[in-house]
Amino acid sequence: MSREKSNPLKSLFEPGNFAVIGASRDEKKIGHAIVRNLLKGGFKGGIYPVSPKSGEILGMKVYADIREIEDEIDMVSICVPSGLCLEAVRQCSEKRVRNIQIITSGFSEVGNNRDEEEMVAIAKSAGSRILGPNIFGMYCGASSMNSTFSATGINPGSVAILTQSGALGIAMIGKTAVENMGLSAIVSLGNKSDIDEADLLEYLIDDASTRVIMMYIEGVKKGERLIRMLKRTTKEKPVIVIKSGKSKRGAMAAASHTGSLAGSDRIFDSIMKQMGVLRADTLEAAFDWAKFLSICPEPGGDNSVIVTNGGGIGVLATDACEKFGIDLYDNQDVLKSVFGPVTPSFGSTKNPVDITGGAMAGDYRTALSAPALSGEMNSTIALYCETATFDSENLAPMIRETFERHLAANKPIAYAAVGGESVEKAMALLRRENVPVFSDVEPAVSCLGAAYRFYRYRKEPIEPYCKPDINAGRINEIVDSVIADGRNSLLAAEGREVMIAAGINVPKSGIAKNIGDAVDLAESMGYPLVMKIVSRDILHKSDAGGIALDLENRDDVMHAYEAIIHNCRSYRPDASIEGVELAEMAQKGVEIVVGAIRDASFGPVVMCGLGGIYVEVMKDVSFRSFPLSVNETMGMVRELRSFPLLLGVRGEQRKDIEGVVDAIIKLGAILKSCDRITDMEINPLAVYEQNSGLKALDVRILVKNPKEDRT
Amino acid sequence: MSREKSNPLKSLFEPGNFAVIGASRDEKKIGHAIVRNLLKGGFKGGIYPVSPKSGEILGMKVYADIREIEDEIDMVSICVPSGLCLEAVRQCSEKRVRNIQIITSGFSEVGNNRDEEEMVAIAKSAGSRILGPNIFGMYCGASSMNSTFSATGINPGSVAILTQSGALGIAMIGKTAVENMGLSAIVSLGNKSDIDEADLLEYLIDDASTRVIMMYIEGVKKGERLIRMLKRTTKEKPVIVIKSGKSKRGAMAAASHTGSLAGSDRIFDSIMKQMGVLRADTLEAAFDWAKFLSICPEPGGDNSVIVTNGGGIGVLATDACEKFGIDLYDNQDVLKSVFGPVTPSFGSTKNPVDITGGAMAGDYRTALSAPALSGEMNSTIALYCETATFDSENLAPMIRETFERHLAANKPIAYAAVGGESVEKAMALLRRENVPVFSDVEPAVSCLGAAYRFYRYRKEPIEPYCKPDINAGRINEIVDSVIADGRNSLLAAEGREVMIAAGINVPKSGIAKNIGDAVDLAESMGYPLVMKIVSRDILHKSDAGGIALDLENRDDVMHAYEAIIHNCRSYRPDASIEGVELAEMAQKGVEIVVGAIRDASFGPVVMCGLGGIYVEVMKDVSFRSFPLSVNETMGMVRELRSFPLLLGVRGEQRKDIEGVVDAIIKLGAILKSCDRITDMEINPLAVYEQNSGLKALDVRILVKNPKEDRT
Repeated sequence: MSREKSNPLKSLFEPGNFAVIGASRDEKKIGHAIVRNLLKGGFKGGIYPVSPKSGEILGMKVYADIREIEDEIDMVSICVPSGLCLEAVRQCSEKRVRNIQIITSGFSEVGNNRDEEEMVAIAKSAGSRILGPNIFGMYCGASSMNSTFSATGINPGSVAILTQSGALGIAMIGKTAVENMGLSAIVSLGNKSDIDEADLLEYLIDDASTRVIMMYIEGVKKGERLIRMLKRTTKEKPVIVIKSGKSKRGAMAAASHTGSLAGSDRIFDSIMKQMGVLRADTLEAAFDWAKFLSICPEPGGDNSVIVTNGGGIGVLATDACEKFGIDLYDNQDVLKSVFGPVTPSFGSTKNPVDITGGAMAGDYRTALSAPALSGEMNSTIALYCETATFDSENLAPMIRETFERHLAANKPIAYAAVGGESVEKAMALLRRENVPVFSDVEPAVSCLGAAYRFYRYRKEPIEPYCKPDINAGRINEIVDSVIADGRNSLLAAEGREVMIAAGINVPKSGIAKNIGDAVDLAESMGYPLVMKIVSRDILHKSDAGGIALDLENRDDVMHAYEAIIHNCRSYRPDASIEGVELAEMAQKGVEIVVGAIRDASFGPVVMCGLGGIYVEVMKDVSFRSFPLSVNETMGMVRELRSFPLLLGVRGEQRKDIEGVVDAIIKLGAILKSCDRITDMEINPLAVYEQNSGLKALDVRILVKNPKEDRT
Repeated sequence: MSREKSNPLKSLFEPGNFAVIGASRDEKKIGHAIVRNLLKGGFKGGIYPVSPKSGEILGMKVYADIREIEDEIDMVSICVPSGLCLEAVRQCSEKRVRNIQIITSGFSEVGNNRDEEEMVAIAKSAGSRILGPNIFGMYCGASSMNSTFSATGINPGSVAILTQSGALGIAMIGKTAVENMGLSAIVSLGNKSDIDEADLLEYLIDDASTRVIMMYIEGVKKGERLIRMLKRTTKEKPVIVIKSGKSKRGAMAAASHTGSLAGSDRIFDSIMKQMGVLRADTLEAAFDWAKFLSICPEPGGDNSVIVTNGGGIGVLATDACEKFGIDLYDNQDVLKSVFGPVTPSFGSTKNPVDITGGAMAGDYRTALSAPALSGEMNSTIALYCETATFDSENLAPMIRETFERHLAANKPIAYAAVGGESVEKAMALLRRENVPVFSDVEPAVSCLGAAYRFYRYRKEPIEPYCKPDINAGRINEIVDSVIADGRNSLLAAEGREVMIAAGINVPKSGIAKNIGDAVDLAESMGYPLVMKIVSRDILHKSDAGGIALDLENRDDVMHAYEAIIHNCRSYRPDASIEGVELAEMAQKGVEIVVGAIRDASFGPVVMCGLGGIYVEVMKDVSFRSFPLSVNETMGMVRELRSFPLLLGVRGEQRKDIEGVVDAIIKLGAILKSCDRITDMEINPLAVYEQNSGLKALDVRILVKNPKEDRT
């Protein structure tokens, strides 16, 4: 019962009794296929076909109505036409079934949101959960439940697949059979009207049979919850994501295909990285990684050794190691003593270790056993080019044996072999035996790279989120007054006040209503100063001649005041002029941009990037979901290509990176503390040398009255 | 005879008579394998085994000495131990054989350059060419010549492979058999002591049986000639290159493996792009592209249409199209009228066209025939997800038929099918039939992308190289004096003089030896000005207090002069001070960097990039081999991520892009006109608005006395 409680969806994956509404004797119908697949798959619970046509289906009694069934029902599959679904859900809720999978399509994916929402509401009132609609069903290895209408003969195993695309999901099941990849579960998510990825992850985290989770995603709805679940999951087991809609046009196609907003792929990508999710660009890569991670041990340390019989592919593998972030083992003495005995003089014991084209199976056995036995080497990349001397018959046994040795030593190894028919045959055979072999260098190294990314993420300590001390009350007051004023953006002075309330440094400034005040203010602030017109009628201050820079003394201030007032009066005689603003002329520093937005999919998201004019051009920005720990925020700053500017280039001092981290966290906290703020950006944020702090030179804050959403 | 003349290596690929020095009766020996492979491969010319042990090999008379053979010999394979090779080459040159392939290893690849150079010299004196040493031989389809020691049963076809790696080459032959990819030729290049890629390309350009050329390269020696040959070749047929050593560590490994300097991969990459070469990162991609380009027609126009039965993979393909630069056909009216009849209401006639999971073979036939027949659509990407409704038996016939239709219409099509055993079987069958089918979306789209890159490059008109008018005489004078002075870099003033001689704008400047001169000079130049100390004893001018900025009038000039002299005297009392330099204080502009270097592999190479501090940090630079046309140079500027800065962002005016192009071409011309210059860089080059020109603010020129190389 305690496990039941911690896994609210246990009854979905491992139901006691399963009813099929719309069951059919017609073999071509979905309502038949599901009953058949449940039966043939050896489902451990009871199966209850429901159909107005009574009698038997595949030897099982048919019930006219689900409410007639006396036993408790944990799971129902609805496969009646869309017009009948609402009534079916109603009957299920009367019967108090726990989970309903709705196969039928024709709901929100074609714009029919109303019926979908009603089904969810009805189910919710009875405490039932809905999977779908618009799905092909699901499979669970633990309960031998195959409630799909398509796939037969799914192999049980340790990979769980969650897919938003039905067509691709069915095709993926086929692919798992080809690859001999066993599944612990596959779930078709469809329209995600109720159950989504986060719910399923909650079950899979604790599911002992699931070692790796693979998800195909097109769009995310409740992103904040998904983030929380991913964060927990990836500390336990690897999660691989394929998300389509990476390109602009692809995102449009995805939106029109799923009926949901696709959101920014950059943000999605950053958040997946933050959560330790392994994102694959292609189906092949996702399958390769899933299989590799399900069969290979985790690396115990950071380095790897490449063993090859061909210099060329050794170099290709070295390139791939850099691409996929794998460090090569580098102790030349150990390499020489370990690999020397099997390496001819024209080979190389440097890593990549080239045992040359003359290497026989025995040489490979010796060479590949070394890293398994070594106390220092953590993983192995084994490469083979077909040669005239190596008898291909010996290839598979050699690989099998050295793989076993690595398994015994609890170390990962990836093999790549390039050659003709006999090599390919050996590879195909070994793949079926779940030995990690590949026909090209890059996929092998890419798999090991995925293992390392997972390993490194898991190793990172979990740190508490930062809760900076900001004056939330004052911020909300400012925003309230802006909304009361009917505006959706803050004036510069208001933006600065928000910064001050959050403890983010801004240049000193003040407003003067006449020339005397201006001089007094200037004298109290110190020089150099900037003067700007304050008038809600003048939007483009420079065009109006309303800005003066570099004011160095009281004379400059007086001249500037007169000139600005004169310019603005002639620019727009009817303008109401409230005075001038005097501000400290800030030193340049390194200009970066930091921001926070409320993402439609993921909620509060912070960003930073190379600032000024470069943010648009170089697009050197990184994103993270908020809240954040200090280290996570550091990671986001370090990720910038322009990070060396903050470290100090050309002999410059290191900049106040801690200050940048603090500013990012404070922006996130402001957003969290005031739900009317939708978008904030400091651009530029001038960053000075360490301990000299930083200054928010320009602040833009957008707000929205949440009440407006409802009108 | 005329063809013979235009293809100096015809006798290598299609020799009349072939002798094997080191022929053997021992089946395990290379000298046996080569004779056997020539014989079994059905070589069209005569075969002459040469060995001190007389008698017969495989029924053929053995000659004790090549000089005993009465017939003319076009080609010899030497496979005696390395110690005997020199004598064998001597005998060959006496016999005046035309081509010698030296299988034997143990020469420059292990540091034995002397013997290798001597063999080349001997051969050269007799007009013979050498292939190798350290190779596995070669194959030519036209002459049915298999002179490799490893591969039997190579299929003739239309792909030519040139490989610097022997091990990988042999493995690649195996792979071609698996893929059923026919070869027109495969040549093992080994140490490239004489014959290199450029020589072989010269033959392959005109070789009618070769449609596609694939090269595996580790390092380039005579790059300038390779560039010239590539430029000619890629206007005729696609060239695919795999080059290892992309990463820093990979480059080191390649250098130690081949004994040659690897050179900068960035430069290699840029030049390959410039020459229209398709660079593949993986063996799989290279093979996929080679096969696709050898079996599919070229596209006749820029757009493509995606047809799918699954929305998910449709979106993945759309993403891949953006990645690989494929434009999607976009006329909604035509799409609707063409695909409407086979697209259900819940599908989509927008591109990607989703004919939905219910699509049967007939629907696919109709949908995939449409682009073939259309006057507007130029190519097709056909996707299939295995479904329960589509009978897999119909898959292969449908694909065959629609592929034929595309061939008949002279349009390319790429298929990707995801599914289980029966789908994979159909794919394997079709692959053997040379139908372009793939098991994942990305490789299919990547192939079509390669076809488009080739198509677009071929379409670009060939333009004349720019020959800018520069004063080469003056530049050489300046450099001569620097070398005479024993220096290897130019002083700032000398660099400016070179710029002036080339017609590149520099800030006005002059040198003053006393305070009076300084004031006169300043008054004649106008303000604002910068003043700098001129002293060869003071390297770091700012540290010495030897720089003054923002001089706005004669008073400023006088004060600055006194201050600088005072500072420098106290900084280094013994410094010999020649005076001060006064220079115009140039406006900021967009700062870029342009340069020209003499690359060890490729000769004159020019570069440009985002300048100032950003060039190191953002590494936003592009390279080209020089000489260049205006359009090629524009392409190199446009390639920069920071190019929008030159176009003008945030309402700024377009900058003088033509001036940048001109400056790059002039730097290349300077390098070409003076062989003592090794390295030039203008950083920053301030670029102003169009027609306001640009200014070289800082010029760095390195020189080297070419005579020093010989000592």
